[in-house]
Amino acid sequence: MNLPQQITLCEVVLRDGLQNEPKVLATGFKRQLLEDIQDAGVKLIEVGSFVNPRAVPQVADTDLLFANAVRREGVEYRALVLNFKGLQRAAACGVTKAKLTVSASLSHQRANANTTHEEIFAGFEEMAAFAAAQRITLSGAISTAFGCPFEGAVSAETLKAIVRQYLRIGVTELSLSDTTGMGDPLLVYRLVSEMKDTFPQVMWNLHFHNTRGMGLANVFAAMQAGADRFDASIGGMGGCPFAPGADGNIASEDVLHMCELMGVDTGVDLDKVIAMARRLQDEVGHPLSSSLLKAGKNSELADLATAKMSGSK
Amino acid sequence: MNLPQQITLCEVVLRDGLQNEPKVLATGFKRQLLEDIQDAGVKLIEVGSFVNPRAVPQVADTDLLFANAVRREGVEYRALVLNFKGLQRAAACGVTKAKLTVSASLSHQRANANTTHEEIFAGFEEMAAFAAAQRITLSGAISTAFGCPFEGAVSAETLKAIVRQYLRIGVTELSLSDTTGMGDPLLVYRLVSEMKDTFPQVMWNLHFHNTRGMGLANVFAAMQAGADRFDASIGGMGGCPFAPGADGNIASEDVLHMCELMGVDTGVDLDKVIAMARRLQDEVGHPLSSSLLKAGKNSELADLATAKMSGSK
Repeated sequence: MNLPQQITLCEVVLRDGLQNEPKVLATGFKRQLLEDIQDAGVKLIEVGSFVNPRAVPQVADTDLLFANAVRREGVEYRALVLNFKGLQRAAACGVTKAKLTVSASLSHQRANANTTHEEIFAGFEEMAAFAAAQRITLSGAISTAFGCPFEGAVSAETLKAIVRQYLRIGVTELSLSDTTGMGDPLLVYRLVSEMKDTFPQVMWNLHFHNTRGMGLANVFAAMQAGADRFDASIGGMGGCPFAPGADGNIASEDVLHMCELMGVDTGVDLDKVIAMARRLQDEVGHPLSSSLLKAGKNSELADLATAKMSGSK
Repeated sequence: MNLPQQITLCEVVLRDGLQNEPKVLATGFKRQLLEDIQDAGVKLIEVGSFVNPRAVPQVADTDLLFANAVRREGVEYRALVLNFKGLQRAAACGVTKAKLTVSASLSHQRANANTTHEEIFAGFEEMAAFAAAQRITLSGAISTAFGCPFEGAVSAETLKAIVRQYLRIGVTELSLSDTTGMGDPLLVYRLVSEMKDTFPQVMWNLHFHNTRGMGLANVFAAMQAGADRFDASIGGMGGCPFAPGADGNIASEDVLHMCELMGVDTGVDLDKVIAMARRLQDEVGHPLSSSLLKAGKNSELADLATAKMSGSK
C-alpha cells in the first residue's frame, strides 16, 4: 500500500467552516485565529469569500481580514470568488490567490446560481483576463464532484468536460469537492486515479465532508490514489445545509491525527489545532463534530484510562 | 483495488451496544429487536453476554433472551462468556456459539480481570473441553488489538502468540477488536494482511470503534486486506468507557450504506436497520452517534434538497 510521505492541509474554517454558522464571529476573533493557524504551521489557508455580505454576513469581513493580515513567507492565502465583482474586491485588498467554483451538476448549479456551465465559463474567461492583469492566480473548484443531491451520480465525463474548460482559461490547480458528503472511498479512489491519469498537469486538491461518516475513509482512499492536498476545517466546523445536524467538513485535527498515526507528515502542530478547536467550540457555543474534541488523541487515552482505573478502586 | 464481493455483518447492539447504556432496556423490547434484526436479513447476531448480572444489569436477561428466541435457519446466535460459570449458563439456555475474549495488552487484561495470559488460557482450556461436550462452538476475541490505552502500540508478535494459544485449544474463529478506537487504516491494513497470511486457517472477524473518526476508514482498509466479517452496532450504540461522549462501535447503518454504495453485498435491508436505529434512539432518549440517523442515505438527500429549494422560494 502506497501513501504519500507528506500531505498539505488547506485550512478552510474561516470560509467554509463559518459560512453556515448562525453566529457571526467578530473580526478580531478571526484575525487571532488566522494568526494561530499560521503559528500551527499551516501553509495553505482559505481566509474568506467575496460574496454578497448581506447574503453571507458570516464572511462579510473578508476584505478587512485580507487587508490587515500579516502575510508570512511560504504561506498561501486563498479566497473564494463567485463573480467579477468579487474578484475586483479581492484585487482591492491584495489577494494573490482566488478560487472559482462551479458545480458538476447542472441542477445544483442552477439551484445555486441559475446559470449554465457555458454561461459561467464565459464569465470565468473574463475574470481570468482581469486576474492575470492583477497578478492573481486562479484555482478552480468543482462542487458535487462525488454525487449531487438532485442528480445522484456524477460521471467522470462530466468532470472531465469541466476540467477542460478550466484548463482552457489557464486554471491548473483544481479542487474536487464532495459538497454534500455522498462520496464513498471506492468511488473516490477510482475517480481521483482517473482524473490524475487523464490530467497529469493539474495540481489536485480534495475537499471532503463527513456527512455520512466516510470523511476519513475518503481521505485514505484519495491518498492511495496519490492525492496529497486536502481541505479540512478546524473542529469540523461547517455543516450540511441540506441536513441540519449532520456533520459537514472533515475536522482538521481528525485528519492530522490519522496522518500522524500513519507516519504521513503534515508539518502542522496537532495540539495547537486541537486548542483552536476548543476555543472555537466555546466561541460558537455548541458542540462541534470533531472526533478528537470528544475522544482526545490516542496518546491521551492512557491518562484517561489510568485516571478511570484509579478512580474506580 | 480489490474489495470482497460480499461481507457478513455481525450485529452487536444487544451486547456491546447496550452494556454501557445507562438505561436498562426491557426484555420485551430486546426480544422484538432481536426479531427485527433477523427480519432485516442479519445472519450473525451477538445476543448478549453471560457476565455478573449485578455488575452489568444491561445484559442480565441474556439467559432469558436465548431461552425464548425463535431461532431461524442460517442465522448464527452468539454470546460472550468470560468464565466457566458463564459458559455453564450459556449451555443451560441452549447457546451453540460462545465467544471468549482476552486482551492483547497485559495491563488492560489486568485492569479488567487481574489475570495473566497464561492463567486465562488455562481457564479457556477447561472451558473448551466443557464446550465440546455440550456441542458449543467457541470463537475468540482479542481486545485492544490495534492499540492499548495503557501500553500504546501492540506488536504483531504479541497478537500471534495469543492466536497460537487460541489455536492450541481448538478455537479457529477469531475477532480482532479495536476496543478503544486507536487503530488507523494503514495499521489495520498491515496487521490484518499479516495475520491472514500467517494464519490462513483462521476465520477472521473485525471489530472497530469510531472513537477518533476512523471507523469506516478501518473497515475499508480491512476489506482491502481481504477481511469480510465485521461487527457493528445499530445506531452506533455503545460508547467508549474511557472517553464519555466519544463515539463507540461503528454504526451498522453507516457500514451497510458504505458497502451498498461500493457495490459490496451485505444481504441486509438498510432501511429496516435505519428504522431500528430510530426506535432505539427514542427508547434510550438521547441522540445516537450514527451518521445516517442525522444525514439520511445518499438517495434521500434529493428529497431534502428539493424540499429546501422549493421552501426557500
